[in-house]
Amino acid sequence: MKYIEGGICAAKGFKASGLHCGVKSRKPDKKDVALIISDCDCAAAAVYTKNVVKAAPLHVTKAHLADGIARAVIANSGNANACAPYGEENAEKMCSFVTAALGIPCENVIVASTGVIGQTINTSVIESGMSELVSLLDYNGSHMAADAIMTTDTVRKECALELELDGKTVHIGGISKGSGMIHPNMGTMLCFITTDAAISSEMLKKALLDTANVTFNRISVDGDTSTNDMCVIMANGLAENAEITEHNENYAAFTVALKELCQTLAKKMAADGEGAKHLITCTVSGADSVEKAETIAKSVISSTLTKAAIFGCDANWGRVLCAMGYSGVEFDPETVDVTFKSVAGEIQVCHSGRGLDFDEDIAKKILTEPEIEILISLREGCEKCTCWGCDITYDYIRINGDYRT
Amino acid sequence: MKYIEGGICAAKGFKASGLHCGVKSRKPDKKDVALIISDCDCAAAAVYTKNVVKAAPLHVTKAHLADGIARAVIANSGNANACAPYGEENAEKMCSFVTAALGIPCENVIVASTGVIGQTINTSVIESGMSELVSLLDYNGSHMAADAIMTTDTVRKECALELELDGKTVHIGGISKGSGMIHPNMGTMLCFITTDAAISSEMLKKALLDTANVTFNRISVDGDTSTNDMCVIMANGLAENAEITEHNENYAAFTVALKELCQTLAKKMAADGEGAKHLITCTVSGADSVEKAETIAKSVISSTLTKAAIFGCDANWGRVLCAMGYSGVEFDPETVDVTFKSVAGEIQVCHSGRGLDFDEDIAKKILTEPEIEILISLREGCEKCTCWGCDITYDYIRINGDYRT
Repeated sequence: MKYIEGGICAAKGFKASGLHCGVKSRKPDKKDVALIISDCDCAAAAVYTKNVVKAAPLHVTKAHLADGIARAVIANSGNANACAPYGEENAEKMCSFVTAALGIPCENVIVASTGVIGQTINTSVIESGMSELVSLLDYNGSHMAADAIMTTDTVRKECALELELDGKTVHIGGISKGSGMIHPNMGTMLCFITTDAAISSEMLKKALLDTANVTFNRISVDGDTSTNDMCVIMANGLAENAEITEHNENYAAFTVALKELCQTLAKKMAADGEGAKHLITCTVSGADSVEKAETIAKSVISSTLTKAAIFGCDANWGRVLCAMGYSGVEFDPETVDVTFKSVAGEIQVCHSGRGLDFDEDIAKKILTEPEIEILISLREGCEKCTCWGCDITYDYIRINGDYRT
Repeated sequence: MKYIEGGICAAKGFKASGLHCGVKSRKPDKKDVALIISDCDCAAAAVYTKNVVKAAPLHVTKAHLADGIARAVIANSGNANACAPYGEENAEKMCSFVTAALGIPCENVIVASTGVIGQTINTSVIESGMSELVSLLDYNGSHMAADAIMTTDTVRKECALELELDGKTVHIGGISKGSGMIHPNMGTMLCFITTDAAISSEMLKKALLDTANVTFNRISVDGDTSTNDMCVIMANGLAENAEITEHNENYAAFTVALKELCQTLAKKMAADGEGAKHLITCTVSGADSVEKAETIAKSVISSTLTKAAIFGCDANWGRVLCAMGYSGVEFDPETVDVTFKSVAGEIQVCHSGRGLDFDEDIAKKILTEPEIEILISLREGCEKCTCWGCDITYDYIRINGDYRT
């Protein structure tokens, strides 16, 4: 398995494009509609937000994926099409534009939206842009599509890997967006993944579910689970490996690669959290179960006070212990060790639940780096789990104090 | 029942004082130790944080209150005495200072701390300050004690009420502190309440538990449940009403007054949340149970994105619906109405889960006021619940980015 270029178009037979159509009416320099097309039908699967309030495109996509087959994705940024008038009607319309332009049946089109909640989406500008969007479709078009799904994201998020199955080279690639309203609860963002692996839609769904739970569901930016989260994978089989239809070696190899890809995209999202200056990686080890380690790690990366301390490069480990304590699981505070780590070094700040005398200048230097690790040991077992988050900054407040206007 | 002056000393026979002893070594103008004394023994009860990591003073107080009797409170700010070396030993020491100065047995002294976690508390400065602290004890000393328990609080929090029981005038008064690390989970702050009512410690405990659940447990500043939260009530019986020993009319009247007092203190804490510019009151009505209404209201006031929108005076009701949706309870988004309200007026922004066309200028004007109400109707039943929170601001980040230094 190795990292390669190409993003969502790294797999054989996938073209993509992106364009400013006018959904983001006040930002003419920002792309706002993405199109992803496979040369042939794909096995497809998706996971959706667990928020009770679900955006219209999720309902439409769910219906279209009932048969596990898809060939195209149309996605817009700038408007979430959630709690908005004519939501499902407009989401269906977006699919029908793909049918009109490319002849792909409506029920094989996946639709997704991200942006402001509660406003009617302007589909006529999307319709007007379709011919140009189609003319831009390119086997090297990943950048365009990745740009077109960004909202408050500051960096484009792409990743691709290749692996061998049955002596055939298989590619998996993805793009994602996600910066605010991010909290572990199924796929917490928009993410599109393509692969040329041959795999049944049933096994593809299983692989995606297993993967989302240990990657996207282990990041948090602000504790807010979006109404629009969706992660979709499409597999067109053009790599010509023997189709994966059961749990076997190839399924395992494919899933390992998918997890690697999704973890990379998840970390990119956490690092690009709205206003974030630090990526926070929290690893809880020595737990008696993975679930407990995960609950504690999530509580730490979600703690507003811990996030503010990391923003201030302040080794305030008391907030880490506090966040562990209200996570909802039982543990013995008297056997907890805490260490802060970065490329600048590492420093243990707490041993057996008590503060250690440590050099504040060294701690500051470690915490000034953009990527910080919080290492927690419970000394009660041998399970562990890692979750990812980011700090909270003045810019988070600025961005979200006036998001709509 | 009516509001009166006097705070923690409003009830007969309670003296209080506060002094800068030196726990806050770098802030010589800030009081840091409070003393509250009753002229005679009191029935006493307390509720504590549910955080697994509990500060040492909580363990000591719990042991001292095992018999339901207390006569004094010693409390400091500037150091939480949590996860710190010699924690319980130092908490016991603080009690012994009261014994040495006033002859009150150690086991009748309540001890509490608030401030930085993980550092050894300097008890020698407290010991040195005791004689002055005792000389300052005053039947009008509530202000001093209220000041001495403040950390990042910007306003002193006091409240007192009087009511009639058996033709006798009964007083209840309290002081509290709490600005950050505040989230509903048992008593989420420090709060001391005194009353001259005659009531058994058993009934006092019941009254306090019932009250904390519907007042302090319905506020949130930042979702972080502190390690040091404690709410204590002491009743010395000097009002000479017939002792309340069972559920009767007097118990009901006393509990109503206690709830009123605690709600007032709770709202003061939410309004004085670290860096806060707005008090947010969220009322969910039309629910089929109080529990559901409470879960949804808490989710809304705890949502970082909703808090940021209110900071920006932005009527971004989509975030309200989003926070409702991930609260963990089921409801029909299609029957949700949302209205924003303040002294400047009210404006409905969402009807049946869909956005309404509303005047943004009027909405801005309403949201510019310091106290904002978010009124949510579910239209599924007739239960309701109100919770209180505050917005998140640049100052919250500034305060918490460098709290320790």
